[in-house]
Formats: sequence, structure tokens, C-alpha cells
Amino acid sequence: MTATSTTFDPAAYGIAPGAAGDIVATQPGGRHETDIAVIGAGPVGLFSVFEAGMLKLKTHVIDALPHVGGQCSAMYPEKPIYDIPGWPKIEAQALIDQLAAQAAPFDPVWHLGQQVTDLSRDEATGDWIVGTDKGTQIQAKAVLIAAGVGAFGPNRPPLAGIEAYEERAVFYRVARKEAFRGKRVVIAGGGDSALDWAIELADIASAIMVIHRRPKFRGAPESVAKLHALAAQGKIDLVVPYQLHGLEGDPETGRLDVVTVADLDGNIRRLEADVLLPFFGLSMNLGPILTWGLALDQNHITVEQATMSTSLPGIFAIGDIARYPHKLKLILSGFAEAASATHAAREICRPGEVMHFEYSTTKGVPGA
Amino acid sequence: MTATSTTFDPAAYGIAPGAAGDIVATQPGGRHETDIAVIGAGPVGLFSVFEAGMLKLKTHVIDALPHVGGQCSAMYPEKPIYDIPGWPKIEAQALIDQLAAQAAPFDPVWHLGQQVTDLSRDEATGDWIVGTDKGTQIQAKAVLIAAGVGAFGPNRPPLAGIEAYEERAVFYRVARKEAFRGKRVVIAGGGDSALDWAIELADIASAIMVIHRRPKFRGAPESVAKLHALAAQGKIDLVVPYQLHGLEGDPETGRLDVVTVADLDGNIRRLEADVLLPFFGLSMNLGPILTWGLALDQNHITVEQATMSTSLPGIFAIGDIARYPHKLKLILSGFAEAASATHAAREICRPGEVMHFEYSTTKGVPGA
Ligand SMILES: Cc1cc2nc3c(=O)[nH]c(=O)nc-3n(C[C@H](O)[C@H](O)[C@H](O)COP(=O)(O)OP(=O)(O)OC[C@H]3O[C@@H](n4cnc5c(N)ncnc54)[C@H](O)[C@@H]3O)c2cc1C
Ligand SMILES: Cc1cc2nc3c(=O)[nH]c(=O)nc-3n(C[C@H](O)[C@H](O)[C@H](O)COP(=O)(O)OP(=O)(O)OC[C@H]3O[C@@H](n4cnc5c(N)ncnc54)[C@H](O)[C@@H]3O)c2cc1C
Repeated sequence: MTATSTTFDPAAYGIAPGAAGDIVATQPGGRHETDIAVIGAGPVGLFSVFEAGMLKLKTHVIDALPHVGGQCSAMYPEKPIYDIPGWPKIEAQALIDQLAAQAAPFDPVWHLGQQVTDLSRDEATGDWIVGTDKGTQIQAKAVLIAAGVGAFGPNRPPLAGIEAYEERAVFYRVARKEAFRGKRVVIAGGGDSALDWAIELADIASAIMVIHRRPKFRGAPESVAKLHALAAQGKIDLVVPYQLHGLEGDPETGRLDVVTVADLDGNIRRLEADVLLPFFGLSMNLGPILTWGLALDQNHITVEQATMSTSLPGIFAIGDIARYPHKLKLILSGFAEAASATHAAREICRPGEVMHFEYSTTKGVPGA
Repeated sequence: MTATSTTFDPAAYGIAPGAAGDIVATQPGGRHETDIAVIGAGPVGLFSVFEAGMLKLKTHVIDALPHVGGQCSAMYPEKPIYDIPGWPKIEAQALIDQLAAQAAPFDPVWHLGQQVTDLSRDEATGDWIVGTDKGTQIQAKAVLIAAGVGAFGPNRPPLAGIEAYEERAVFYRVARKEAFRGKRVVIAGGGDSALDWAIELADIASAIMVIHRRPKFRGAPESVAKLHALAAQGKIDLVVPYQLHGLEGDPETGRLDVVTVADLDGNIRRLEADVLLPFFGLSMNLGPILTWGLALDQNHITVEQATMSTSLPGIFAIGDIARYPHKLKLILSGFAEAASATHAAREICRPGEVMHFEYSTTKGVPGA
């Protein structure tokens, strides 16, 4: 087997690395109307946008994460996957970029950083209404639940009243480093995210305090070494072994003044600070979905494999969250499920319209 | 959407254009033993080799064509496909190359240019025996029928006794141009293959005669123009409108002397020739498969979607040939079917062995 790659022109294959990063989310709030609401922008939700588009169905996609990609992007972006058909090897994030590029011609509307909390039926039209925690409402003829293992969200430290400071003085990820210029920043956590951001912000923030409940850090050895070097230079203050204990400030305006921390004996220390960045990892929360009255099977949604339809009419489930006999929890199975579900959803969105089957080679895609 | 392709390194993704062309077929004949016999080397058969490999199952693959790729390679190698998940656009042959590269680490045995004609059960072992028209026998614990729309074969002109000359003086494809150096060659047909080979061989053969039943040729306009230019130069003899009528020579040795042709009024002309190349396209022949006692549904094999099992134990059908309610005849559906079938076949090949589920990212592939 000779691996000649010289004749291969990625652009000719529509390969656009970074495509997922180019996605722009719409403003939260408001009421929208569409053919299909897709809950979850993991690999399977993304591919369903493409399949729906090929059937001339419009989609709105909602994800709790601020970016698309589901488990692939959140949990193993740089790991190679070997079992995507037609890709002998592809890094998880590159796959997501490919899927985002493939969906792009159909102009889906992205509602990111919002968790779907409600599903209800509009009695007048028979449509479904999908509601999020940010007040967005999407009225859709069909709903595809591609929610994987649940909504991804940061693990929140158990501090009384922390909600009042979130997105104002408490942030679970750094969207723009410059926002922290000249600020006194407390970073909590002992893993790679905590270390990486402490190092990145050392020259930007006016003070960096790193809180960890153990004296040892868990991150990559080079990062740990760099952290200790910066601490030796006085650029970073290591507050170990300590745990977060409380917040002081103005809950009205969200202004933070002091982060209190406690050692193992309960002794309190007060750290003057403007910002708290807790990095305690992600967790998944299937929560609301389990309360929508769908037939379930051990935290999964029961579907008919042939159409991926759930026990509620017009509601489909695909990908990791869907269960039927002999289900394989593989991305490639989710792709086929997305095709089945969108074809079935088409009959609900366009009742009575005859489907004229055409291959993609014949039909093409918009802009190709 | 920015289509930056500079950071994309095809080699890093295991992309090996030409991988399908590197496949070497084994000699026909003999008896082989394996876990799974895969009938058909189209995209779905190819992917089942990979999936079987990931489950540590050995495969032998049989195809009537001398190359892998099924419909993709035989019917539309250069057309772009848009609905392969993770490939916004990929030419059919490039997809086949990718699938061949993905299967390669598992060292399948390729039996190409052989049609499977028999399927029988070995009473002693309970294994299946797959037999081909070239006398090859493959004993397998499970059989995956990925036969698409049937075995591809050339359309044979209805000339009495033509079989005696096939592969000796009558060829349906040109494997090596040099084989025709200095020969008197009759080419029959009016499409692109006939035109292309007439042009290609004009400088190699000692004489080229092109037979077509109409005065007009159907090929690409540039090819038609080139053909007429070569005819004007006396390098090609256009014998139109004529049809093939008969062969004269020695059927024992396969030596051809004369090809007779007839015009519309039945007038015969005798062309002295060493070689006949009939280019009347490919046809598909499901033939033998329909006689194996499998439950059928309008020329398709009926399967249980969850496992892709047919009405015979240990025999599975996947891809275009398989039918179940709501089946979509798409390559991407065939990929998922290949995963389901190989997982089900594993229980037959390794009865009682517990399957420890592992992601490809964890497990890797041989040599990666
Ligand atoms: C380390 C690792 C390696 C893996 N390797 C492989 C492999 O090699 N091959 C393979 O096929 N698979 C692999 N997998 C599994 C694969 O990643 C999953 O099968 C796949 O991600 C499932 O896709 P999905 O779209 O169904 O769900 P997910 O990827 O889980 O995406 C679901 C999305 O829905 C969102 N969501 C859920 N509920 C809500 C809600 N209420 N509101 C808003 N958003 C919501 C989530 O935030 C999430 O982004 C691996 C997984 C891991 C963790
Ligand atoms: C012009 C065109 C465009 C298309 N565009 C698309 C598209 O955009 N998207 C899409 O998803 N699909 C498309 N398709 C369909 C797609 O090509 C098929 O779904 C796919 O090839 C089916 O794969 P398969 O492996 O099941 O069978 P096939 O590709 O048909 O391969 C079956 C193989 O089995 C062999 N075989 C059969 N019987 C025997 C036997 N008895 N012995 C030995 N060998 C045997 C045949 O020779 C053949 O090579 C298109 C098809 C065409 C013709």
C-alpha cells in the first residue's frame, strides 16, 4: 500500500478545517418557526442538519455548549477516530469541522450555550414548542433529539449565591483573554484547564491566584513545571491546599470583591479578587429530557429503528440517546439514524408530498 | 465559512489515493477457510471488511469485477458524492480508495474477477461453502452478501461460439495496451470506451477497425472529432453502419482470423483480424443469488434490520441488495448495516465469547 498524498487536493474535497469554529450563534430569546428543531449539536445532530437540508427541510439546532461537536469536541478533540467510514483516521475535532462544513450550505440556525428545558405541544397547529433556559422558543413540525449523554455543562462549585455572579465575575471558560486585563483573577482547579489558563493569563491579569485542594497538580508535566516557575517569579500565587469557600461582593451588579478559601482544618483565607474561574470539568445532564413523557429504557429514549420515532408523534431520537434492540453506540450508526429520522420527519413536515428519490451526485448541494 | 486548507495534511489522516488500485487478487481455485466470506467488494462490502477486522474476524472478499468499488468504481468513478458523512464532497473512486485503505490493515484476501455461483452448507462443520465460477471454494462461518444490484459483467455480443475466444482473442477490457502491438484489432461499440480505445490503440495496433451500427458515435465530442481525424489520416477504419455477425478462426486454440459484420440489409463483410474488443457496457446479474433459497422481496434479500440476518442462519445481507421496512438505498445506510451485520456475525464466529466494547480511539487499528 503506497500512501501517495501528492495528488490529493483537500480544497477539491470541500475540506474546510475550522468550519465548526466559524459557526455564529444567534441571540438567545424570541420565538422562531422551522421545520425541524434539533436538540444537540454533536456529530449526529450535525449530520441530521445536512440530511434535512437535502430533503429541503429547514433546521434550528440547540446545544447547551457554546460550540458544536458534542462529545467529540468537548471530551476528545485531538484523539484519532478510526471507524468513521471513508476516514481511515480522523481527529475528533476534524470530523466535527467536516460535518459543520457539510451542514453549512443549508444555513441552519444555531442556538448555542442554551439548554433545552421544555417540550410542549402547540394545540392550535399541532407543532412542537422547544423552550430553552435562555427564553428561546422554537416552534417546529418535528423534533430530533440528538442529545447524546445529556447536556454538557461545567461542574459548578457549591458556593452559596454563585448564580448571581455567573457570566459577570464567575466564568467557566475563557472566551476572550483581554477581558481579564488588569484584573485580579482567582483560578480554581488542579487539571490542565486551570494550569493552562493560569499560565496564559499570567501576563495579562494584575494578579493570579491558583486554588487547589491538593499540593500536587494533575496537569501535563510541562505545564506543572511552568506554573511553578511563574510562581517562583512571583507572577502566580499558589494557594494550596485550599478549597473554595465563599464569595463576597454585590450580587445585584455581579461585582466580586473577595473569594474566601478554606484549608483542610477549616481555616479561612480571604483573597481580594475581581474574577473567579472555576475549572472543575464538564458534566452531562439528561435531566429535563427524562421528564417529557417519552418512553424510556434505562436513561435512553426508546425508538423504532426503521424511522427512529419515539413514543410521541413527530418526536425522533438519534445517536447515543436512542435505544433499540442491538443498537451500537457508534457515530457511524448515528449517521444512518439521522438519515432515517429526517426521511420520516419529512412526511410530517410535508404531508402528502411525494418524494422523488435522487442521488446526491445528481441533486448536488447548494453552492456546489 | 473560510475554506482554509493549508493546515490539512492528508497523510496524517491516512489518506492514500490509489489504495484500491494497490489491491492484489489471489489466484483463482483452491479451498480456503475463513471467518466471514463477503460477496461483493462495493463500498458496503469494503467497509464490512474493516468492521470485521475491528472485531478480530478474518475475511475473504469475492467480486465478479477485476477491481473493487462496485457501482462507485464501475459506473461513476469521477462523479462527486455529497452525502457521505464527514465528506462534504468526494469523488466516488476517491471514496473507494479511502475504504480500501481503511480495510487494508486487516489483510483481507481478495478473490476478484470471479462470480459467486454456489452457496451450500458443510454438514460436518455447519460452515457455509461459497463457490465461484473459477472453481474457488471458501469455507466460512458466516457469509455477508453485499452484492448490490448484482454481479457486474460485460454485455456479451450474441455471437455463436464467442466463449471459445474470450480472454484469448476477444477481450471486454484492455488490461495492457502492449498486448495489442502489431495486431489487427476490431473494436465494436459507439460509446466512450470504444472511442477511447480506438484512439489509444491507433499507434500500437497494425490496423484498427471500428464497428458501429449507426453512422453517428455517442462519445464525448472531442473524442468523436479525434476519431474522424484519425480515420481521415487512414489510421482507423470506420465500418459503419454495421453490426457484428460472426467469428471465424480456431476455437481450439482461440486464434481469431476473421470478424464478419452485416449492414442493415444483411450484406456481409469479412474483416481480417486478430483481436475483437466489444464495448457494449456493463450489465448486472443477480442470477445465482436468487436461487439460494433466501427469503426475497422483489429481487432484494429480506433481512431483520437490527442484525441484517437473512432467512438462513449465518447468512447476512447488507447494502443495496438488502431490504427491510423504510430501507434507504444509500451508501451511508450500508455502512451502518455493515457494522450491525459484523457484530451479529461475531456471535456466530466466536460463540460464547464475551464482547468487550471499546471505542476505535482506544483500540486503534493494526499498524497505527
Ligand atoms: C473518549 C471517547 C472516545 C470515543 N471514540 C469513538 C470512536 O472511536 N468511534 C465512535 O463511533 N464513537 C466514539 N465515541 C463515542 C462518540 O463520541 C459518541 O457516540 C457520539 O459523540 C454521539 O454523538 P451524538 O451526536 O449522539 O451525541 P453527543 O456527542 O453526546 O452530543 C450531544 C449534544 O447534545 C447536547 N445536549 C444534550 N441535552 C441537551 C439539552 N437538553 N439542551 C441542549 N443541548 C443538549 C450536549 O451538550 C451535546 O453537545 C467516543 C467517545 C468518547 C468519550
Ligand atoms: C450514478 C450513480 C450515482 C449514485 N450516487 C449516490 C450518492 O450520491 N449517494 C449514495 O449514497 N449512493 C449513490 N449511489 C448508489 C450507490 O452507489 C450504491 O448504493 C452503492 O454502490 C451500494 O453499495 P453495495 O456495496 O451495496 O453494492 P454495489 O456497489 O452494487 O457493489 C456490489 C458488488 O457486488 C458484486 N457482485 C454481485 N453479485 C456477485 C456475485 N454473485 N459474485 C461476485 N460478485 C458479485 C458486483 O460485481 C459489485 O461489484 C449512486 C449510484 C449511481 C449508479
